[in-house]
Amino acid sequence: MTIGIGLLGLGTVGAGVAAILATPQGRHPLVADLELKRVAVRDLARPRPVALAEGLLCTDPEAVVDDPAVEIVVEVMGGLEPARSLILRAIAAGKPVVTANKAVIARYGDEIAAAAQAQGVYVLIEAAVGGGIPIIEPLKQSLGGNRIQRVSGIINGTTNYILSRMAAEGAAYGAVLADAQQLGYAEADPAADVQGGDAADKIAILAGLAYGGPVDRAAIATEGIDRLDARDVDYAARLGFVVKLLAVAEHVGQDDDGVQKLDVRVHPTLLPKHHPLAGVHGVNNAILVEGDPIGQVMFFGPGAGAGPTASAVVADILNIAGIRQVGGASAGLDPLLAASSWNRCRLVDGLDSQHRNYLRLLTRDEAGVIGQIGSCFGAAGVSIQSIVQYETDGPGAEMAAGAEIVVITHQVQEARFRGALAAIKALDAVESVAACLRTL
Amino acid sequence: MTIGIGLLGLGTVGAGVAAILATPQGRHPLVADLELKRVAVRDLARPRPVALAEGLLCTDPEAVVDDPAVEIVVEVMGGLEPARSLILRAIAAGKPVVTANKAVIARYGDEIAAAAQAQGVYVLIEAAVGGGIPIIEPLKQSLGGNRIQRVSGIINGTTNYILSRMAAEGAAYGAVLADAQQLGYAEADPAADVQGGDAADKIAILAGLAYGGPVDRAAIATEGIDRLDARDVDYAARLGFVVKLLAVAEHVGQDDDGVQKLDVRVHPTLLPKHHPLAGVHGVNNAILVEGDPIGQVMFFGPGAGAGPTASAVVADILNIAGIRQVGGASAGLDPLLAASSWNRCRLVDGLDSQHRNYLRLLTRDEAGVIGQIGSCFGAAGVSIQSIVQYETDGPGAEMAAGAEIVVITHQVQEARFRGALAAIKALDAVESVAACLRTL
Repeated sequence: MTIGIGLLGLGTVGAGVAAILATPQGRHPLVADLELKRVAVRDLARPRPVALAEGLLCTDPEAVVDDPAVEIVVEVMGGLEPARSLILRAIAAGKPVVTANKAVIARYGDEIAAAAQAQGVYVLIEAAVGGGIPIIEPLKQSLGGNRIQRVSGIINGTTNYILSRMAAEGAAYGAVLADAQQLGYAEADPAADVQGGDAADKIAILAGLAYGGPVDRAAIATEGIDRLDARDVDYAARLGFVVKLLAVAEHVGQDDDGVQKLDVRVHPTLLPKHHPLAGVHGVNNAILVEGDPIGQVMFFGPGAGAGPTASAVVADILNIAGIRQVGGASAGLDPLLAASSWNRCRLVDGLDSQHRNYLRLLTRDEAGVIGQIGSCFGAAGVSIQSIVQYETDGPGAEMAAGAEIVVITHQVQEARFRGALAAIKALDAVESVAACLRTL
Repeated sequence: MTIGIGLLGLGTVGAGVAAILATPQGRHPLVADLELKRVAVRDLARPRPVALAEGLLCTDPEAVVDDPAVEIVVEVMGGLEPARSLILRAIAAGKPVVTANKAVIARYGDEIAAAAQAQGVYVLIEAAVGGGIPIIEPLKQSLGGNRIQRVSGIINGTTNYILSRMAAEGAAYGAVLADAQQLGYAEADPAADVQGGDAADKIAILAGLAYGGPVDRAAIATEGIDRLDARDVDYAARLGFVVKLLAVAEHVGQDDDGVQKLDVRVHPTLLPKHHPLAGVHGVNNAILVEGDPIGQVMFFGPGAGAGPTASAVVADILNIAGIRQVGGASAGLDPLLAASSWNRCRLVDGLDSQHRNYLRLLTRDEAGVIGQIGSCFGAAGVSIQSIVQYETDGPGAEMAAGAEIVVITHQVQEARFRGALAAIKALDAVESVAACLRTL
């Protein structure tokens, strides 16, 4: 029983999908039932890394969606429009959709899910987060018996590549970024990666699945790595930490009306060296899920690339093909696979959340400074794990006139920490707050 | 729409499942639809860690299976019989089964799958491997587009706990085992864990899913950690390796008649310190799947325990409950979830397989021994990565009269390595082969 596939886009991921469908031997036997019927591209003349049957290509994506031979629409063109409209068009035609488009799902996931629910079709998104790593399906199906306390992940390969090299080589952010761009690990315009927007898209999607309701993508506190100083990567290492761009979605409670309170954020974070996520290097991704009763479970693998992402897209196609055999096209939806919402969620004010903090201060090199800083923290009720004055030779030689003091706090409410920080800034001996980073 | 659950066994895992079903708040809403109808236990009078409704308990597991109110049978009693017969009885009655019983599935999985296929019911086994870690579902569904090259894992928590402590403390196997037994991490009769049988059960199951056909459990080459010497853990560390009990299922080719050739084995293995599995400590488990086009993907988490295992059992129950909504009880099976076989598999002779090796020799302390050993390897065409003579003070003080020589080979065919080893044993200067371990 052949199932007709329509492909919107034949870039890296699209070509990867086409390559899998063209070579079913050795894969799950259902792959052999999938047949590529039509492919929309921007430019017919462009050379392709994959050989396609004559006449499959066209430049009209709507024609692919509308083609009666296309039973599953695979959107791998990226961008917000026309991707969003094409997804909605496929749903309206009663066709299930597989998409790798995290930007569309993070922003319009709610609209798309409602349309899909109304039409009784699936919209599957395994490839939108974590490249080839199975994380969407486990969150939707395998972890359903749990109360999820926290989802945290390294879900942007470009920034993890940059951070891994900064840590290994002691190199500056700008130099590594330039190199990463030359090697193709970072785009010419790296903003979405290095400023954290891509990770925010993805954690919005994971939070929505983990907590059963959409979160407001625009309200996610997002800080990238573009202002990260190599000195802080170095000091973190000396104190036993690794700096990673972490995306976190944490359950912090429930309002009286049942709305789930979530703390969702993206920021560079100091991880203790033995934390499961600390060993994730290069372009790899990993997602750590903490819940009751499972404890901690982690998913690790290649976060991007044609092959891994195509693997995830094909997994979704197979899922749709498999479930069609249960009850035919007119059957009901599996609520786990359909990932309907059942909760309302809201993001809490970051000032209420609890964190450990890393702080680097530039100070005058005089006696008593550490005592003054300690007193400010003490007065605000912030307890400190370590406070260290570093020699200003080596990486700090250019500021030899002053001193550098690095503080790691214990866990503290953000508002309380901000209060202490304001008092510290006001000290005569403190010249500036050079860095302030979250710490696990 | 309530779905009636019958539980066979109320030990650690059974009680964990009952606890989840009794507290659906904050979990997937489908959990609230699951209702525990009847529970079979051995002893009605035994105190339970979980409060159950009046009249649920009985001592007749067949009555639970046969109870018309029981729609899904959950087998968490363990052991081969009566577990196997009860699973088959449930299938014959047209009831889907969820089981955590790796021993039964590794030995009778084929018989059970055939019966399930004939009756059109699911038998789901997520809890049988890796405790709470989602690995069965990802292998069945999320990785279906891949050609799986290798599945390797740390899938026995007891032995990983022992090995982690041996490495951290330099302690002897026997001492750590005794301590682990006292702490409840190892059973009074630890044979199934420390001799590798439990890991062999689990890799048989993973291999069957990854390669689409049952493997002969009895033919899996199995070596445990019960003869592992602390000296080898120490030398491995000095050479940059960690010793783990690894279970491996590798695709090595295909016969002319299409039978898949697999190398499936369990043995203590030296892993390079930066290998993804090398950082898995204590009772944690991890499974690394390598395939085309995904590359490497790893699943990490708690390999045992009431909570994690119950999480996996409930995931399977939810999957069955979810898919029932697609087409009702009389619908077809989803071939991905049903995990039907589509290949025939056979295990290859270990002598044909390729490995790196670690070898520790006790020799006379005289000039030229290393040269003689090197010549034996050279004559057999085995190339060597390192050959080191260790000082016999420190951990080796008791054999100060001789010398210890540790060799790491490059990858070599097992038969060729065995040939070299025979020649080395025959050397006058070589007193004994103290250890021979596989190396990644």
